[in-house]
Amino acid sequence: MNATMVTEFAKRDWETAADGTVRFALIGLGWWTVDIVIPAIEQADYCETAVLVSSSTEKAQRLADRHDVDRGITYDEYHDGAASDAYDAVYIGTPNAYHLEYVETAAELDKAVLCEKPLEATAERAEQLVDAAADGDIPLMTAYRMHTEPAVRRAKELIEDGFIGEPTQVYGNNTQPLLEMIPDPDQWRLDSDVTGYGTSVMDLGIYPINTARFLLERDPVQAEARMSSTHEAFDDVPDQFATITLTLEDDVPLVCTTSQHAQEDTELKIIGTDGLIELSPAFHGEATLHLSSGSVEATIEDTDFTEVEEMREEFDYFADRVLGDEPILPDGRHGLDDLRTIEAIHEAAERDEPVDI
Amino acid sequence: MNATMVTEFAKRDWETAADGTVRFALIGLGWWTVDIVIPAIEQADYCETAVLVSSSTEKAQRLADRHDVDRGITYDEYHDGAASDAYDAVYIGTPNAYHLEYVETAAELDKAVLCEKPLEATAERAEQLVDAAADGDIPLMTAYRMHTEPAVRRAKELIEDGFIGEPTQVYGNNTQPLLEMIPDPDQWRLDSDVTGYGTSVMDLGIYPINTARFLLERDPVQAEARMSSTHEAFDDVPDQFATITLTLEDDVPLVCTTSQHAQEDTELKIIGTDGLIELSPAFHGEATLHLSSGSVEATIEDTDFTEVEEMREEFDYFADRVLGDEPILPDGRHGLDDLRTIEAIHEAAERDEPVDI
Repeated sequence: MNATMVTEFAKRDWETAADGTVRFALIGLGWWTVDIVIPAIEQADYCETAVLVSSSTEKAQRLADRHDVDRGITYDEYHDGAASDAYDAVYIGTPNAYHLEYVETAAELDKAVLCEKPLEATAERAEQLVDAAADGDIPLMTAYRMHTEPAVRRAKELIEDGFIGEPTQVYGNNTQPLLEMIPDPDQWRLDSDVTGYGTSVMDLGIYPINTARFLLERDPVQAEARMSSTHEAFDDVPDQFATITLTLEDDVPLVCTTSQHAQEDTELKIIGTDGLIELSPAFHGEATLHLSSGSVEATIEDTDFTEVEEMREEFDYFADRVLGDEPILPDGRHGLDDLRTIEAIHEAAERDEPVDI
Repeated sequence: MNATMVTEFAKRDWETAADGTVRFALIGLGWWTVDIVIPAIEQADYCETAVLVSSSTEKAQRLADRHDVDRGITYDEYHDGAASDAYDAVYIGTPNAYHLEYVETAAELDKAVLCEKPLEATAERAEQLVDAAADGDIPLMTAYRMHTEPAVRRAKELIEDGFIGEPTQVYGNNTQPLLEMIPDPDQWRLDSDVTGYGTSVMDLGIYPINTARFLLERDPVQAEARMSSTHEAFDDVPDQFATITLTLEDDVPLVCTTSQHAQEDTELKIIGTDGLIELSPAFHGEATLHLSSGSVEATIEDTDFTEVEEMREEFDYFADRVLGDEPILPDGRHGLDDLRTIEAIHEAAERDEPVDI
């Protein structure tokens, strides 16, 4: 472990010689879009924000004015094709159950789509979404920002180079105090009609599940899980807490704990026969990579790399793919796979027995 | 989190006004007894090594001479009561399946017992061991050195004071490359006649399982597990790797991963509604306590606290209890409970279904 490992850390090894700019319509103006996505696009090399889309003209236009964006339109206007000459791609940052309708319209309008994860509220709807994009022949990426996070990409490179030997066990944790972050018991993440199967696996568990898949290039084949909700705000969702054991291909176990009502903590640890790679913190900016092999240990910290930079990398990756007409790794089918896994997790918890994926 | 928290860190809050010295016979002179226990007793306030007990007079006497101990005797001589005036207590550091016979003799000789964990090779034999000590009315402690580890005791105090709120999820990992540490495929930890149910849960999993019980004062009520052995040296034991989900009382999940054929790593993380306590590393000296509550974080590191100091604390605790005729916390029944849990874990893995404990 030497200086080269650190200096190579932030390399955009995916970047092609693509040239140009992708102009975005941002759909759904919650705090993530406003506070993270808009600044990320401002920092990006190949992106610009052209249109904001929200529930009312007033809100869309007010935020457009504030952030120096040309147009603010309503969801209905978007569906009617308003301002469609002004943008090339849409970013969908709405609650889960509304993703499908925006993708269907994007397919009609021939726009590329960067869609937030989970891809939809259920695997069935996610499949319709993927089919709509395929029918319209539009590029579709699921917004897994861990795929372009330099610490994660560095970890993947190390694993491919044999640093940990054969992976033996994986642990992921993603917990947060949702009601302290958003003190509203009626928020959409606690409404099963909008969030889908539940809250902590859909919103948090998806990070360790997808990042482990990405790092190890192994998909889950079986799920076991237990979950419970005790706080009254979680009456409508089964998984205030969840504890999951997935079996990845080659019989590698991935254990995950998730909660929307606990101290914030994120960790992903991959143990192997010859070494260990740990991201701690892992999933909300400032990912720090801890490495050990035999008696050698190292920590690679990049505290300047926040969620804004993660999203900048993700948007530039997406734009690079679209401009160069290159294949997208976390595509729609990749996002659909995770919803099938999450469906199996919920089924396993309900039936209290292992469920094949 | 302030200076007081750190300065109170190493306090022996268990210490009574006991006076005197407990003279030990050390039974089983493997590397742990020789390299860790003998130096620990040399540092201890209330202990001294009086007799060494091994397979041959030659080995026992050679090590006695080297470590300035009065007597070296054989196992047979111990059973015959040789030198029994020279010691007050025995420390049993032999392979698991031999503990019972030494406790039976100690009970006949009216000697207090500090017995290594796991208490025996099976729950059935451990029960016989506990009964033998009870029949002989001798003090019996199971050698859980985490109970006297200052970082662990500090963590316990914080949990009792409400630092983490209600515990929601617990994760423990204990992995090591056994064949690199002891390059002998015929070693006793891989021989089911001597180790008992298996190797990685008996030898490594017992740490997170027992430490979580101790910290949370909650016992396991159900076990689910999967385990596998792939390397030929592990042909006789089922758990080269194990992944365990225990349900502790009040429905708190404890997920554990263990392996005897992986990169060394130890961690114990207890997540709660209001805070988090993590020991990382956790179990092999130099325990480091990571604390967070809301947005406040702290790390309490004590790199001078090695396995020798852990054992010193354990021996002085045991001696303090014996000298003051005080109750022992990790007593025989406490150690037996863990063997019942380990038995359930192995049964759950074999049957591939949850097993009540």
